[in-house]
Amino acid sequence: MLAKEDLIYLKEHLTFWEKLSDKEKQLFEKHFSIVKYRKGENLHGAGKECLGLILIKSGELRIYILSDEGRDFTLYRLNEGNSCVLSASCILNNLTFEVLIDAEQDTEVLMLDVNTFSKLSQENIYVENYAYKKTADRFSDVMWAIEQVLFMSFDKRLAVFLYDEMIKTKSNIIKLTHEQIAKYVGSAREVVSRMLKSFETQGILKLSRGTIEIIDKDKLRKII
Amino acid sequence: MLAKEDLIYLKEHLTFWEKLSDKEKQLFEKHFSIVKYRKGENLHGAGKECLGLILIKSGELRIYILSDEGRDFTLYRLNEGNSCVLSASCILNNLTFEVLIDAEQDTEVLMLDVNTFSKLSQENIYVENYAYKKTADRFSDVMWAIEQVLFMSFDKRLAVFLYDEMIKTKSNIIKLTHEQIAKYVGSAREVVSRMLKSFETQGILKLSRGTIEIIDKDKLRKII
Repeated sequence: MLAKEDLIYLKEHLTFWEKLSDKEKQLFEKHFSIVKYRKGENLHGAGKECLGLILIKSGELRIYILSDEGRDFTLYRLNEGNSCVLSASCILNNLTFEVLIDAEQDTEVLMLDVNTFSKLSQENIYVENYAYKKTADRFSDVMWAIEQVLFMSFDKRLAVFLYDEMIKTKSNIIKLTHEQIAKYVGSAREVVSRMLKSFETQGILKLSRGTIEIIDKDKLRKII
Repeated sequence: MLAKEDLIYLKEHLTFWEKLSDKEKQLFEKHFSIVKYRKGENLHGAGKECLGLILIKSGELRIYILSDEGRDFTLYRLNEGNSCVLSASCILNNLTFEVLIDAEQDTEVLMLDVNTFSKLSQENIYVENYAYKKTADRFSDVMWAIEQVLFMSFDKRLAVFLYDEMIKTKSNIIKLTHEQIAKYVGSAREVVSRMLKSFETQGILKLSRGTIEIIDKDKLRKII
């Protein structure tokens, strides 16, 4: 059974709530549960079963694809207040691709199991439509990622990433390894390290073990 | 006013038809029209206004993105019986990216203008849901294209393309320029020409002006 605050959180975020019958509301309330993931944990993909609908309470999930040779491409990342529908892609027939989902931080989610989600989205068109609308949001995210990788020069891409990260974390110190950044921007660690070193030489940032300190925001912005 | 056969074609392909009220059906019938495009014509994007919902009667549309520097990446192609919803992306709020759409062949479509489509998808959740489901289909197509470009070596990608094209056209003669193929597989013309030449040397195909004749299907399949 969900705590009262979690129920309020659900109703706030699931835009179809008012379109549910009382019986359906009860089903939702009964079958949503709190699940916690540790940083680095894999939630979905790699042979794991389909999870269901996820609403993130705190933390961060990374959704990515992996080649046979182990090449990794980040499609997008999701934070608090976002719902993740690709974790229920097995019941959305129009989605025919597979993704992997990892927790990038310690993450707490509200999860509706896949059977209940399937039943409710078959019964109530507003639930199904919610899932497909969220899918369209994610499609937009993926298009953004593709355009970055295909069309943007690497220095720009890295600068955009660092700038966004700075705004997101409200700090000029970015606590990520070069390996992590490479995954986020769809590149190799060596390429990221080389470009960061070049940014350091240009006086844009200062590198130290595990952190990157942005020391000249204006210069960084000029690259973008 | 649509011809009777076009109306039957519509009803067959628009899966929400039975969920429409009589008034809505009349609106659909009244506002769908036949539009013809010449091979090479641009339908959508590049500053053009949003068209509406398109159902392809014959021909082929190519949906792609273009960088500021003119680099072109094919997301997918659509043929007879497919509907194109990105031509109405302006009314699908969850889609925040822009694509271009060209006719690859002389193409005939049934088109519902964007105002009527907008009105009907706001009124009837089944119409909106149809659009978002089709969007999810296209998301799957795009994921396939990304995986090809990011993860597959170029010889494989080109071999897959030639093989698919052979099956699609039911002919071992492919009538496409190297430039066109480059657009479809997301590469440069020079790279395509070089690889085709290498395939020719391996005895897989024979090149002549404007056509590629596959002479050893088994060898081609082995690359895939």
